[in-house]
Amino acid sequence: MKSYREEIRVHTKRTIEFVRITDRVREAVRKSGVNEGLCLVNPMHITASVFVNDNESGLWHDFEQWTERLAPHEPISQYRHNLTGEDNADAHLKRTLMGRETTLAITNGDLDLGTWEEVFYGEFDGRRDKRILVKIIGE
Amino acid sequence: MKSYREEIRVHTKRTIEFVRITDRVREAVRKSGVNEGLCLVNPMHITASVFVNDNESGLWHDFEQWTERLAPHEPISQYRHNLTGEDNADAHLKRTLMGRETTLAITNGDLDLGTWEEVFYGEFDGRRDKRILVKIIGE
Amino acid sequence: MKSYREEIRVHTKRTIEFVRITDRVREAVRKSGVNEGLCLVNPMHITASVFVNDNESGLWHDFEQWTERLAPHEPISQYRHNLTGEDNADAHLKRTLMGRETTLAITNGDLDLGTWEEVFYGEFDGRRDKRILVKIIGE
Repeated sequence: MKSYREEIRVHTKRTIEFVRITDRVREAVRKSGVNEGLCLVNPMHITASVFVNDNESGLWHDFEQWTERLAPHEPISQYRHNLTGEDNADAHLKRTLMGRETTLAITNGDLDLGTWEEVFYGEFDGRRDKRILVKIIGE
Repeated sequence: MKSYREEIRVHTKRTIEFVRITDRVREAVRKSGVNEGLCLVNPMHITASVFVNDNESGLWHDFEQWTERLAPHEPISQYRHNLTGEDNADAHLKRTLMGRETTLAITNGDLDLGTWEEVFYGEFDGRRDKRILVKIIGE
Repeated sequence: MKSYREEIRVHTKRTIEFVRITDRVREAVRKSGVNEGLCLVNPMHITASVFVNDNESGLWHDFEQWTERLAPHEPISQYRHNLTGEDNADAHLKRTLMGRETTLAITNGDLDLGTWEEVFYGEFDGRRDKRILVKIIGE
């Protein structure tokens, strides 16, 4: 059995931002030398998400509006977490909506994705350097 | 280490439909010859979900109503994704609510599920042939 | 390849309750003897969730209020599932919001978590003994 670990770094300019990372995950799979296996991709942060969806910028806008509607930032005082001095309770909820991690199949040495499947990092409390963990096992 | 890959095909008659696939995933596990391992099940499409829940038809109705309440189809113009000519932005959001994939344990050559756990394919933009990926690794 | 399976038992006193299980999962990883691999953690029940987030009690309160807002318990008659004699349809939806399972990386014989990542069991239909499955594969 082989295993491989890599951290992908991202820096977002906005509080909420979606970053396509399909190619960087694909590159990690190539470096791993794994032909058949599983590839876990997760943020190492608790206000961010790694998810699979369409590479279409209108949809990212929809994700931003939709998560804001279901878990609004304001009023900050509606969340008990914000009594700690944070103002990011909504980011924890938004990340929960979008999911923490994705597990992807590796077949013939490449990500085994459907035609329109792309991998994204979704940031909900950004403007800082963040890390994404890629862990691959297989043979 | 062994690995196994299979595509399960489904054809839904309605736009939103839930299909129980536990037995077909179980059959893939048997064919894999894996006794101890992990089994990833994911749709190869971005408007569908694979999830684990109760095999009870009233609940599927509740899932349909609930996802429609949290991510309504109409008005189509509320979603920027639909400016591309699509009308399925809500299906991308509904799939996000239900989750893309599930990872299941394999123990003693079978799915290691709790008493009431069943595996479902949830379609949110149906009436077409769709594919579900099953990827198994273990020994 | 090594594999390891363990069931973690929890007993919640309230209907909705969050239990930190990071240390118990970590202990399972140690017992497995796996240095590099993947660790799946999932409830064996369909009204509960295993998820990763912040170890901050205000946030658990926010999760409870937020899931109740998006999937309210009352009126019980709004859910078709409850026609079966159950009153827990909302617990199935709340668990869906929070996600069923998490897959975690194992590196150097330990859970490979970000600084603030902690593992939780979220119960939405509690006051009974419940089981959490930990399945580890790797080498």
